[in-house]
Amino acid sequence: MWKMRERSNQERLQARFKLPSPTRLDVLSLSPAAERLRHILREEDEPTPTLFTEMDTLQHEGGEMEWKESARWVKFEEKVEEGGERWSKPHVSTLSLHSLFELRTCLQTGCILLDLEGYSLPQIVDDIIEKQVQEGLITPEIREKISFVLLRKHRHQTKKPIHRSLADIGKSSPSNRSPNPSPRSGSGFHRSTEDLRAHQSGGLSKLRESGLLCLPPSIDLSTTTSGSLEFLITVSGFNKFMKKIPRDAEASNVLIGEVDFLDKPFVAFVRLAQAATLGGLTEVPVPTRFLFVLLGPNGKTKSYNEIGRAMATLMVDDLFSDVAYKARDREDLIAGIDEFLDEVIVLPPGEWDPKIRIEPPKKLPSAEMRKSVFSLNELGQPNGNAGGGAASAEGEDLPAPHELGEELKFTGRFCGGLWLDIKRKVPGFLSDFYEGFHIQSVSAVLFIYLGCITNAITFGGLLGDATDNYQGVMESFLGTALAGVVFCLFGGQPLIILSSTGPILIFEKLLYEFSINNDIDYMEIRLWIGLHSCLQCLILVATDASYIIKYMTRFTEEGFSSLISFIFISDALKKMMSIFNYYPINRDFKPDYITSYRCECQASDQVALNASSPLGLENISDYSMFNFSALDWNQLSKKECLSFGGSLVGKSCKYVPDLAMLSFILFFGTYSMTISLKKFKASRYFPTKCRTLLADFSIIVSILVFCALDYVMSLDTPKLHVPTQIKPTRPDRGWIVMPFGKNPWWMCLASFAPALLVTILIFMDQQITAVIVNRKENKLKKGCGYHLDLFWVGILMAVCSFMGLPWYVAATVISIAHIDSLKMESESSAPGEQPQFLGVREQRLTGILVFVLTGVSVFLAPVLQYIPMPVLYGVFLYMGVASLHGIQFKVKNFWERMKLFLMPAKHQPDFVFLRHVPLRRVHLFTLVQITCLAVLWILKSTVAAIIFPVMILGLMVVRKTLDLIFSQHDLAWLDDILPDKDKKKKEDEKKKKEKKKAKSEEHNNGDEEVRTTIIRCVRCS
Amino acid sequence: MWKMRERSNQERLQARFKLPSPTRLDVLSLSPAAERLRHILREEDEPTPTLFTEMDTLQHEGGEMEWKESARWVKFEEKVEEGGERWSKPHVSTLSLHSLFELRTCLQTGCILLDLEGYSLPQIVDDIIEKQVQEGLITPEIREKISFVLLRKHRHQTKKPIHRSLADIGKSSPSNRSPNPSPRSGSGFHRSTEDLRAHQSGGLSKLRESGLLCLPPSIDLSTTTSGSLEFLITVSGFNKFMKKIPRDAEASNVLIGEVDFLDKPFVAFVRLAQAATLGGLTEVPVPTRFLFVLLGPNGKTKSYNEIGRAMATLMVDDLFSDVAYKARDREDLIAGIDEFLDEVIVLPPGEWDPKIRIEPPKKLPSAEMRKSVFSLNELGQPNGNAGGGAASAEGEDLPAPHELGEELKFTGRFCGGLWLDIKRKVPGFLSDFYEGFHIQSVSAVLFIYLGCITNAITFGGLLGDATDNYQGVMESFLGTALAGVVFCLFGGQPLIILSSTGPILIFEKLLYEFSINNDIDYMEIRLWIGLHSCLQCLILVATDASYIIKYMTRFTEEGFSSLISFIFISDALKKMMSIFNYYPINRDFKPDYITSYRCECQASDQVALNASSPLGLENISDYSMFNFSALDWNQLSKKECLSFGGSLVGKSCKYVPDLAMLSFILFFGTYSMTISLKKFKASRYFPTKCRTLLADFSIIVSILVFCALDYVMSLDTPKLHVPTQIKPTRPDRGWIVMPFGKNPWWMCLASFAPALLVTILIFMDQQITAVIVNRKENKLKKGCGYHLDLFWVGILMAVCSFMGLPWYVAATVISIAHIDSLKMESESSAPGEQPQFLGVREQRLTGILVFVLTGVSVFLAPVLQYIPMPVLYGVFLYMGVASLHGIQFKVKNFWERMKLFLMPAKHQPDFVFLRHVPLRRVHLFTLVQITCLAVLWILKSTVAAIIFPVMILGLMVVRKTLDLIFSQHDLAWLDDILPDKDKKKKEDEKKKKEKKKAKSEEHNNGDEEVRTTIIRCVRCS
Repeated sequence: MWKMRERSNQERLQARFKLPSPTRLDVLSLSPAAERLRHILREEDEPTPTLFTEMDTLQHEGGEMEWKESARWVKFEEKVEEGGERWSKPHVSTLSLHSLFELRTCLQTGCILLDLEGYSLPQIVDDIIEKQVQEGLITPEIREKISFVLLRKHRHQTKKPIHRSLADIGKSSPSNRSPNPSPRSGSGFHRSTEDLRAHQSGGLSKLRESGLLCLPPSIDLSTTTSGSLEFLITVSGFNKFMKKIPRDAEASNVLIGEVDFLDKPFVAFVRLAQAATLGGLTEVPVPTRFLFVLLGPNGKTKSYNEIGRAMATLMVDDLFSDVAYKARDREDLIAGIDEFLDEVIVLPPGEWDPKIRIEPPKKLPSAEMRKSVFSLNELGQPNGNAGGGAASAEGEDLPAPHELGEELKFTGRFCGGLWLDIKRKVPGFLSDFYEGFHIQSVSAVLFIYLGCITNAITFGGLLGDATDNYQGVMESFLGTALAGVVFCLFGGQPLIILSSTGPILIFEKLLYEFSINNDIDYMEIRLWIGLHSCLQCLILVATDASYIIKYMTRFTEEGFSSLISFIFISDALKKMMSIFNYYPINRDFKPDYITSYRCECQASDQVALNASSPLGLENISDYSMFNFSALDWNQLSKKECLSFGGSLVGKSCKYVPDLAMLSFILFFGTYSMTISLKKFKASRYFPTKCRTLLADFSIIVSILVFCALDYVMSLDTPKLHVPTQIKPTRPDRGWIVMPFGKNPWWMCLASFAPALLVTILIFMDQQITAVIVNRKENKLKKGCGYHLDLFWVGILMAVCSFMGLPWYVAATVISIAHIDSLKMESESSAPGEQPQFLGVREQRLTGILVFVLTGVSVFLAPVLQYIPMPVLYGVFLYMGVASLHGIQFKVKNFWERMKLFLMPAKHQPDFVFLRHVPLRRVHLFTLVQITCLAVLWILKSTVAAIIFPVMILGLMVVRKTLDLIFSQHDLAWLDDILPDKDKKKKEDEKKKKEKKKAKSEEHNNGDEEVRTTIIRCVRCS
Repeated sequence: MWKMRERSNQERLQARFKLPSPTRLDVLSLSPAAERLRHILREEDEPTPTLFTEMDTLQHEGGEMEWKESARWVKFEEKVEEGGERWSKPHVSTLSLHSLFELRTCLQTGCILLDLEGYSLPQIVDDIIEKQVQEGLITPEIREKISFVLLRKHRHQTKKPIHRSLADIGKSSPSNRSPNPSPRSGSGFHRSTEDLRAHQSGGLSKLRESGLLCLPPSIDLSTTTSGSLEFLITVSGFNKFMKKIPRDAEASNVLIGEVDFLDKPFVAFVRLAQAATLGGLTEVPVPTRFLFVLLGPNGKTKSYNEIGRAMATLMVDDLFSDVAYKARDREDLIAGIDEFLDEVIVLPPGEWDPKIRIEPPKKLPSAEMRKSVFSLNELGQPNGNAGGGAASAEGEDLPAPHELGEELKFTGRFCGGLWLDIKRKVPGFLSDFYEGFHIQSVSAVLFIYLGCITNAITFGGLLGDATDNYQGVMESFLGTALAGVVFCLFGGQPLIILSSTGPILIFEKLLYEFSINNDIDYMEIRLWIGLHSCLQCLILVATDASYIIKYMTRFTEEGFSSLISFIFISDALKKMMSIFNYYPINRDFKPDYITSYRCECQASDQVALNASSPLGLENISDYSMFNFSALDWNQLSKKECLSFGGSLVGKSCKYVPDLAMLSFILFFGTYSMTISLKKFKASRYFPTKCRTLLADFSIIVSILVFCALDYVMSLDTPKLHVPTQIKPTRPDRGWIVMPFGKNPWWMCLASFAPALLVTILIFMDQQITAVIVNRKENKLKKGCGYHLDLFWVGILMAVCSFMGLPWYVAATVISIAHIDSLKMESESSAPGEQPQFLGVREQRLTGILVFVLTGVSVFLAPVLQYIPMPVLYGVFLYMGVASLHGIQFKVKNFWERMKLFLMPAKHQPDFVFLRHVPLRRVHLFTLVQITCLAVLWILKSTVAAIIFPVMILGLMVVRKTLDLIFSQHDLAWLDDILPDKDKKKKEDEKKKKEKKKAKSEEHNNGDEEVRTTIIRCVRCS
């Protein structure tokens, strides 16, 4: 008998460690662990519910006994701190191997009741004891005692001290001091709580019938009042925790205790046929499905606790809980433990302190992959997988390939891409509006709005300078509003924010100069260029030309977006510096010589005036009637003085005190406060919600704080001034530009050539930003529409040209900021689990609101004038820096790789690509990127800036040549594989895989002998 | 036979899990694992050397084979990254349970050679193969093949790419392309490297005789040249790494490979009788003691690798390496593995991703504790200890008790304490000087020097105000230098920095007012008070009165030092704010109206002058001869104008531009740059040494940077002005105060009463700071001298009184800063191990230098005048904030507990005391402290400030009453136990322990049956 069992055990273990082999089919009858599990788990029925596990330990306090919750598991362990009266942080359950083996014994020797029909705790307890007596595990004498112990009341750890205090008061009431303590304030109490929920109107009589059969009959039904009171308190207490438990969850209860009347452990594992709420057993109103009881003789509390923890940890293990749900007998459970043991990760005692609580990891291996070993029968090599960083699974040898999605497929049909884009976007059009209603949107709208108007004012001012106010701030505002609203309403990717961009500005400047020099009407030729460009864009749309950007890899995207970020940063700093020039500081100021600092207006004679300030002359032509000598020159302000032809004399004339310094403080303060508030999200202070809110509104808060500071200082810092009336900046132009009349007819055709340049400019700018916005990392779900985007940009060009407004195209940095401010994270996950980045709030509402607000800014001028410009420059700086860090390229970020240069190898973070690509190759790749950026930067700083977007094509060429320098393996880690190479790579891999598979199968046969020796070892140990 | 072995195994395991029990003695002959180990490890011979382990795997590249280093262990694992050509970060070796079992089998079935006499690899390999053939494990035919494989060359991972490239060049040389590749550029190469080191002048003939016997005879001895070349390169490469390996370390080599000629694994475990350098086997020149070889059939590389990793991890385990050194036979090794397995920590597969590399923990359980289980035979409960955070070892239920050391014992003899102090300090007197020579001292001296002179100037200025310049800045400088040098030379704790303190300042102020009002000579009565106070201090010293401060617990210390820190912070902020008042900003300034801002000096008539400015009159009395009307009033500076009685008229008169703003930028910049640089130490950039240096000099760097900024701005910010001539501030006083003559004789006696107040003041201030400085957390080794300190403070009081200098006492914040800047950390620990805080550079040199520098500051004035005061205020702010955080109270820090108020329970850090004390008790305790602080703060702000140090006694009383509110258990965690309570507690514990022990012994007997079932399970699994 012993020998037979030996052998079957041996065979079972042998099979457990065995790899799939041709002999597999005929060993089915041998019931080995893995085979057993494969048998159970293969059936493809509905997934089993998630288990919530609670461990209660028996406490002896005075003469009384009660079950006290000592830990709970949703996915990770939360322990009740011994003296802390609090929940520990969720942590990974570190078990001792010993306790797992002990648990295995327990399940082998104890009583197992599967699919027990149970509806109340007393009945279940009765059944368990009955079974034990039948099996001869306990003597009938101690029946009553065990039943008594198991039915003691359960005390749960709650967050609200008020609840605990109430329970304490109840406990110390004199009626409980009787020698044979009635459990009324305990079990009855809790049970009523539960049953109130479960049976609702079932009434107390039913309660008595079902639950209280084996309890002393002295039940005072009036306690139900206090029960429902507690219920209410508890509800408010665990409401928050309940969120963390999935809706369909069931509970498993682990009861551990030591008693004095047993001389060997009393073990029972129960699975109920139907989950049932067993009055007050569980902390939360989740029906119980599993019950594990371990009572043992006195003196080994720690050991029992460890066994309990092992059981609880097993119960929340994805694989074992499946096994537990589907187990047919004891052996299935044991097989489950064996499988668990086989996958277990071991830390050597000398390298780890078991008292350290391990924080839950950021990423977990999916349960599906673990289960697939049994269902898919593919390469289920059980060892190795669990082996440190050394053994990486097959699928991980290369990163996930570059996917651009079907949006960029070349359809080959006329307007095929556009049609597909529209078909893709129409179904979500309605949700694009109602999904925008969220508090986060408010912050996003304000943030992006401020960015947009600052941009509009800056570019408006620059355009005004460049075109003699043919396009000024007013045009910029109106154009931004018009283009933005239309694009966000109908565009393919409404998260993209349109704005004027640098290259366009330079083009306008050159065009204007050309027009003036050649006596061409600027507005008319601009209209024709716009029309041609629009037509060209539409042709690109109709021919699905956008598909070529699929050749754009991360290398190009990073280069482009980094460059734009650097430009943002340098612009912000430059603007800040210009304040120092605008408000010069008197460095030689000595407080003591204050009397010598003055600035006086002195009248000059007419001759000197004419010679010195011809500009001043023009302006004062109106005043020329006045008698200059009659003026009190001393009373004139600086402007007046200059306009009347006076000259300013004195030491302090060129200096403006304090403004530059304060501007710097505002600028730097806004920037660093925004950064700090964003970082504050990761701090420990205040509840998560507060922090998230604060981080979402960090920019608004910073702006408000520093506007307030500016207001308090009440210094005359440069403020945001928006136009207050809707009329063209230049009085001699109207809102509509006429296409004919001022220029010769052939101009209409000749403008085709410059339009081509504009088209390339717009196409590149628009589509690269679109690719960056649509990246897989942003987890956009509604799909994108490159063709649709370009279609609208083209149409808007024509419209803007007719109205004499600037041209608009996607702005990289602001679009990224837009996405960043709309990120969603999962909320209710198991305690300790990292919130997952779910995606972005994809909707059209925020964009539309931003541009509507931009449009009505004219009326918001009284409010906006309180915002100092340095604060807005600080916001710009933040946007630049954030987009440099924030582009979700994960570990492959260009910026992160730049930082590697400064880090000694041993301090470098454990990036995946560093595990696979030699450091010097990484550095080489980064250096190439830096060089490209430097070249682009230099180009951008010269007049060549106009061909800057074309240079992006150059980047793509550089990337192509990198194929020659770097291996495809390295590039796959550092960048993406180019589309055609991608295919090749895949084929190569496939071949390799097949080869490997064949090889491994070959070896699996020869493998068995080693295994046998191993198993013999395990068995003998 | 089988059955017998079964049984003995069973018994062994049974004993392994068994607790010490009366039956222990008679099971000694049964050789169970733990018993075995106890037997080996009990012998108290010298500790075994530390093991460095290297794992090499067999690589097949083309037709060639070579051993390539794949990982190494000093304490933690460092892996060679697959493609990264780099060492991974040191991490905890996560093993799979499976591989450990497989390793166990390997050792059970493989060949074990203990104490082999081996001096070269070929000979050892021969011996191994011989043994295997003898045991029938391999057929003699494959002898040659195995020998050939095992003698392939070893390629090591080195940091220098140049080395690798050289090796590559060597590899690709045509001579190696022969079908039967000669290993000359491999083994011979490395061996020569090694042997060059080992045999030094042993010569190549010996090399040939010993090492190359079984190699093909075609050895080209000329390769030794390239060998030595490589040796040189390698030396420079691993020099840094060698530092991390202890001097007496020995190596263990793990060789793992798969070959095609074997059909079952070839396993050998070798322990050499003497450690020997086996040519090129090991990366570093450490002699090899252990060798583990695993060759197996093809196709299971991963599995073999895991077994190798398991072996290597075992070899660096403190316990197992002991076992390996002392093992008598195979069974001992197996027992070692079993013990290892029993202590192992297990992570459930569903809660942890094995691919995550676990960073080495900050603190590790000591190997001694693990070993003590075997040697001390006390309570060696093997399970439970390893069980998560739940089970804490017995000794950890209470924190280490409050120890003040023997320094504060009441000797009962006259000057007993002083005598002991002197005896304690004399032996280290010489080392107090030469131990100060370290780069860190430079930074410390500069930092503390700047703190001291700022303090001296501040207090000097305030004292000058309070005493009409009887004690001014000059006296402050001289006094600081004198007192400081004397104290640092002869004091008991030379790390303490003396300074003027607030309470003394207030006392002087009151005394001066009293003197003026009652026509008493201030200097004379001050001298008498000083003399009385000195006498009283000496009496306190003679009677060992300092022992009473042992009643001062952390509660009091924290209260005091936090208060001082807050005062520092608030003073720094106040001083900064005062700059804003001193240089008011013109808030209504409009750049356009610059013409209206002026400040003119207007002559006023004599009458108005007399009435308006009586002070001005005095000053201009010298000029009264001048004819005012003759003056060009417009040319006068502000001061001149006022002094001539003119009045300033104009809008800009009261305002000073830019200075306040710039001062703020300097102040805040210095503070935040210092903080950032300190934090930079923990960043990943640059090698550790650079960062440490930068952090050490952070304050100096910040000061220099912002001095430079100030210089560049060249604005007239307030600068540090030190006196340039040594003469009393007030011309009518000399350097010596006469004790008699000016006051009635009874004053000499009456001054006893105020002296008493001064004595209490000084005693409390001095000794509390001393206690804080001498805290156990600072790991001071040279002992302290409370009595000696007080003695010198008393003597210095008398001296200063005679010379009319201020009185000095220990300054808490600067002393803490002094200690902080002299902290030492361990340098060469195993890779991945956290550097340990070793203590403080205890010496007298830095202190002396600081005060000598202070003394000669008079001559440094030309340099010091470039330092703006706001920069120094920034340093003050930093000192205050740092001392608030930095006092090494570890987790019990008051500041940390304050922060807990703002954190939701789930985000709170895992402080030990939070595990044991309910949160509301912690909060209550913190609230009591905050209240005390608030009360003290209010007292300090009123005239009652003079009795402020006495209030510290009040704190001690409050602490005493806390005994009534809090349990001793809670207080032990939150504070310290008061001395008498401490004893009681200890006794209680002792009793408890004894009880527990008795109890556990009782149960151990009943325990065995459960164990037996458990073991049966393990055996069957």
